[in-house]
Amino acid sequence: MKSKLNIIIIGSGNVANQLAIAFFEKKCNILQIVGRNKKEVTALAKKVKSKASFDFKSIDKFADIYVIAVKDDAIELLASKLKLGNALVVHTSGAVNASVLKKCSKNYGVFYPLQTISKDKKTKFKKVPICIEANNTFAIETLKKAATIISNKVQIISSEQRKIIHLAAVFACNFTNYMYAVSEKILKENKLSFDLLHTLITETAEKATHCSPSKNQTGPAIREDKKTMQAHLLLLKKDKPLQEMYKLLSTAIIKIKNNK
Amino acid sequence: MKSKLNIIIIGSGNVANQLAIAFFEKKCNILQIVGRNKKEVTALAKKVKSKASFDFKSIDKFADIYVIAVKDDAIELLASKLKLGNALVVHTSGAVNASVLKKCSKNYGVFYPLQTISKDKKTKFKKVPICIEANNTFAIETLKKAATIISNKVQIISSEQRKIIHLAAVFACNFTNYMYAVSEKILKENKLSFDLLHTLITETAEKATHCSPSKNQTGPAIREDKKTMQAHLLLLKKDKPLQEMYKLLSTAIIKIKNNK
Repeated sequence: MKSKLNIIIIGSGNVANQLAIAFFEKKCNILQIVGRNKKEVTALAKKVKSKASFDFKSIDKFADIYVIAVKDDAIELLASKLKLGNALVVHTSGAVNASVLKKCSKNYGVFYPLQTISKDKKTKFKKVPICIEANNTFAIETLKKAATIISNKVQIISSEQRKIIHLAAVFACNFTNYMYAVSEKILKENKLSFDLLHTLITETAEKATHCSPSKNQTGPAIREDKKTMQAHLLLLKKDKPLQEMYKLLSTAIIKIKNNK
Repeated sequence: MKSKLNIIIIGSGNVANQLAIAFFEKKCNILQIVGRNKKEVTALAKKVKSKASFDFKSIDKFADIYVIAVKDDAIELLASKLKLGNALVVHTSGAVNASVLKKCSKNYGVFYPLQTISKDKKTKFKKVPICIEANNTFAIETLKKAATIISNKVQIISSEQRKIIHLAAVFACNFTNYMYAVSEKILKENKLSFDLLHTLITETAEKATHCSPSKNQTGPAIREDKKTMQAHLLLLKKDKPLQEMYKLLSTAIIKIKNNK
């Protein structure tokens, strides 16, 4: 494959932004940014020296890969409006079947970066697993080469596997972030700074990448330290849903221990 | 204060080990390791070139600080057995009142390192908040100087505040680790490697230390992406408690959004 890959990005959200920038920095041509949000599309197009298009009819026909990076629910409808013939089209979702792209091209697949991606924090894709999938060998080879441009961790993953990975990621990322948000709220309500927990949060995450978290559970629940758990429930007495959550999570942790 | 602080550590578990080693490396004298588990006490005493004692009666009377690092439930009983007169005695627990140490000395306090501590992973205390508390000004000054030997983040914290911090830490560390354990289990059951999530876990934690997690929630729940949440619940259908937990957590996340 020529190193100057020609890419069209459809969408202007978090994933669209970070992927466009990552490919642009690796000397790929971002031919077009396509989307309805004029302000965002224009801003992104400027960043990656590309054309901005606000209309799917004006889409360029000569890209190597078309990347649909829009929210899950919008992918299928968008695909039905695009007619790209034999061009290679991918979406970037963890939860949507590759086959919804059948409607717009004969060559389709998935390019799913397994990371929490924000617009305002640059994603370092080098260590991010890119889960790729396609409906034929040529397409998978093209995607593998494209993914390798930005990441060292490219994996061929089926739609079924990707959905499992996405579910696991909801626990490891979204639900984990919710736990951080709860601890932030508890501290704030008591005029204490969330900064106090930064070192703990970093170390907890680091440990999980060195040792199995199921073998590394610490805290009052795994020790079955009933006195401390009772004291915590008392502190949460004004927030019944949170108190219930504390009980449910502690019970689940005690269960891990007893199942061992 | 003379730099060669004389310390006695009571206990031989995770916290006892890491604190003894940290003070030893900063040239403090660890006079004694005291505890009932002969094997562990002997091993730790050897590491920090100290005496090993298996009997509370043989405790040395000339230390600057006595650090009780045993599990929460054992602190009070242990304190009632120790008679240390005016010596400065502290425990290291996030959840236990300082006043349980009244029984063993007139000068007592707390030396609570806000970190998840394991025996087999060296704790870098430099960035770890050490929450100190004492029953008089002299004791607090002594503890402040001692804590500053190993950490740059020493904070004077009351028993009430410490309990709040400990509760918040249960969410940010113990419950978070449980989320990691669940994602590991989901992947394993589907013959996928937990390594896939390492980069995501690290980035999620890093983001929380740069930006408020309540403002940074991502995932299907905060987007109210019902199709994806339904698909996830279906994947969890064989594990009813986990399915319930997914629902509860997603509902709580949606509530954050609507309260904004």
